[in-house]
Amino acid sequence: MSPTIRAERLLADLTHLAQIGAGSDGGIHRVAGSAADFAARDWLDKTLRCAGLHSYRDQVGNVFGRTQRGNGPWLLIGSHSDTVPGGGHLDGAYGVIAAIEVLRTLHEAGHPAADHIEVVAFWDEEGVGAGSMGGLVGSSALCRHPHAEELSGYLELHIEQGPRMDDQGLELAAVTGIVGVRRYRISVQGVENHAGTTPFSARSDAGRVVTRTAAAVQDICQEVNGSVVGNVGAVGFGPGTPNVVPGTAWLEVEVRAASDAILDLVEQQLRLVLDRIAAEEGCSGTFTATSAKPAAHFDTAFVDTVDGVCHTLSDRTERLVSYAGHDASVLSTRVPTAMIFVPSTGGFSHSSRESTPDHLLVLGAQALLDSVLAVTAPLTRRTLQGASA
Amino acid sequence: MSPTIRAERLLADLTHLAQIGAGSDGGIHRVAGSAADFAARDWLDKTLRCAGLHSYRDQVGNVFGRTQRGNGPWLLIGSHSDTVPGGGHLDGAYGVIAAIEVLRTLHEAGHPAADHIEVVAFWDEEGVGAGSMGGLVGSSALCRHPHAEELSGYLELHIEQGPRMDDQGLELAAVTGIVGVRRYRISVQGVENHAGTTPFSARSDAGRVVTRTAAAVQDICQEVNGSVVGNVGAVGFGPGTPNVVPGTAWLEVEVRAASDAILDLVEQQLRLVLDRIAAEEGCSGTFTATSAKPAAHFDTAFVDTVDGVCHTLSDRTERLVSYAGHDASVLSTRVPTAMIFVPSTGGFSHSSRESTPDHLLVLGAQALLDSVLAVTAPLTRRTLQGASA
Repeated sequence: MSPTIRAERLLADLTHLAQIGAGSDGGIHRVAGSAADFAARDWLDKTLRCAGLHSYRDQVGNVFGRTQRGNGPWLLIGSHSDTVPGGGHLDGAYGVIAAIEVLRTLHEAGHPAADHIEVVAFWDEEGVGAGSMGGLVGSSALCRHPHAEELSGYLELHIEQGPRMDDQGLELAAVTGIVGVRRYRISVQGVENHAGTTPFSARSDAGRVVTRTAAAVQDICQEVNGSVVGNVGAVGFGPGTPNVVPGTAWLEVEVRAASDAILDLVEQQLRLVLDRIAAEEGCSGTFTATSAKPAAHFDTAFVDTVDGVCHTLSDRTERLVSYAGHDASVLSTRVPTAMIFVPSTGGFSHSSRESTPDHLLVLGAQALLDSVLAVTAPLTRRTLQGASA
Repeated sequence: MSPTIRAERLLADLTHLAQIGAGSDGGIHRVAGSAADFAARDWLDKTLRCAGLHSYRDQVGNVFGRTQRGNGPWLLIGSHSDTVPGGGHLDGAYGVIAAIEVLRTLHEAGHPAADHIEVVAFWDEEGVGAGSMGGLVGSSALCRHPHAEELSGYLELHIEQGPRMDDQGLELAAVTGIVGVRRYRISVQGVENHAGTTPFSARSDAGRVVTRTAAAVQDICQEVNGSVVGNVGAVGFGPGTPNVVPGTAWLEVEVRAASDAILDLVEQQLRLVLDRIAAEEGCSGTFTATSAKPAAHFDTAFVDTVDGVCHTLSDRTERLVSYAGHDASVLSTRVPTAMIFVPSTGGFSHSSRESTPDHLLVLGAQALLDSVLAVTAPLTRRTLQGASA
């Protein structure tokens, strides 16, 4: 029988952290590097110390916590404590608070696993601040630091941030990996012309190439693979006045899929469709990859362990791929990694409407604790045997 | 046998006027109210006076010219002398210079029609200056002024500004009217959401409503009537970042057609298509008419007269509707009006690529002179009879 986390303490800590950076719009404003972000990290330090734990911070700003007498290798657990502007109170914060609660519970119970766990609140996962280096900053820095050599693995608990679990009535999910994300900018060159005197047949309308291509993105994604998502997030025409046929136009599209091979197929189709439409409209299109994050595939044994724990705690659990990026994608390049999801009510995230029922927040934290025990079992068995010898 | 205009003088004056406001980009910069615009008007004054004609300016800035002994009612001939920034050397300028050449030729020939003609260089037809009242300013002001009561009609010679005549090898055209122009802003409200974690089926993507509607505009226009043209000149998404499903989006569309009844049909179809697509995408669309210029139908007798003259001068002539706006549309609300078109090589206008072969510029000016004689024939017959009595 594993120790049970203290539900009321977990929820109270979540509420407390949500007050740091709370805006009048109902959202949380704790962008990395802001005063509120530093205040939150100070409060995490204090919370760890009040629990009799050791707290320290690295040069980047990641906050760590462990027992006073603990020793490596460490199973790292946590998430990030920064938010987008006006974000929700669970994205990142939930994983950090739950990790603290797991360590605190095991420490209080005198469980040997406590000495092999390290809690982390990563710096700048969101990458939205003015001087940000693009997100996942703290986890990336950790993976380049010698401390990464002392880690045995990484477990992250997070809200899903999408509607799948809520729609299907799932309570827990073992996350198998994180989609790869590619962003492209499509620029189209046509011929600027008088919108009245130029018949349709005589136009080279760059705007039409962009709107037709944009309108085709959803079909392209779905035809390649039902699990691909894409988004046209921005468009623009030049010169951008009602009485001039656009001579230039552009769009920005993002595609996410569970494997890089699928992303390759989508990219190929996007290029074909752009070329075809541009030719039909007498324009030329330029297709530029502006960023590419490869898909992350989590450690099979870790995922199996987490999945087994989830099934012990609930019969409403599945394996899912994550469509949002997480620090876990970075850690998975260095150490065995897995994640646990709880549902997001209505799928809302990055907004003040972000929420998850309390009993599922508690269930998720317990799943994290049980997963920690399952993953560290070989280590703690040795410890227990040593103590009884 | 009517007097013949002096081709070399017409072309030299066009070249001279093109130097006023000529930019290093090859385009003409004579936006209404600019120093170059005033310099051009001063040069027109001087040119009229050097020809022994009377020149005056009204309060708005329209430049007029007539013989010293002339008397009303006046057949007004001319166009505008302002340009868009970087415009061509013929748009407006050609109609003004040709009108001066017609009056000068008739005056020199001692033709009685000369005393019933008034030349005009309208103020601010283009409406692109910072403080502009939206274009057609000079002609609109004239129609509100008592002087409009002294006008017997209006004839305007202009380049086509589109490719139809050049494509079909036409040399002259009698213009039957000017298309009506309506502009709409379509705003769409969806739900801003995470572009990775929100499946296509759970989105209310305002951007998709805008791109799908924009892509449908051409078909809508062509299905209503083959002569309708439309243009989506501007689009935008909010918040406009690659990883957020657009929660808001908008487009600006302009439609031109030869009659207001056809424009009504197009508007009806645009509304239907917007509503259908918005419903399919789980969004709501707002359709706002931002401006509406009614279609202008020129005077039947004037158009017949001009058409007859064109057929006398060339066997490559047709009746056409104008897809560009002109001062003639304003004048046609007060007095019998018609226009003559010469081709635009390649259809280019509002650009430094604007051009028309010299021999067609000369032919157009002669068509204007012959049309003036045909229209004023009843008046001049009386004058000739009076003189011979």
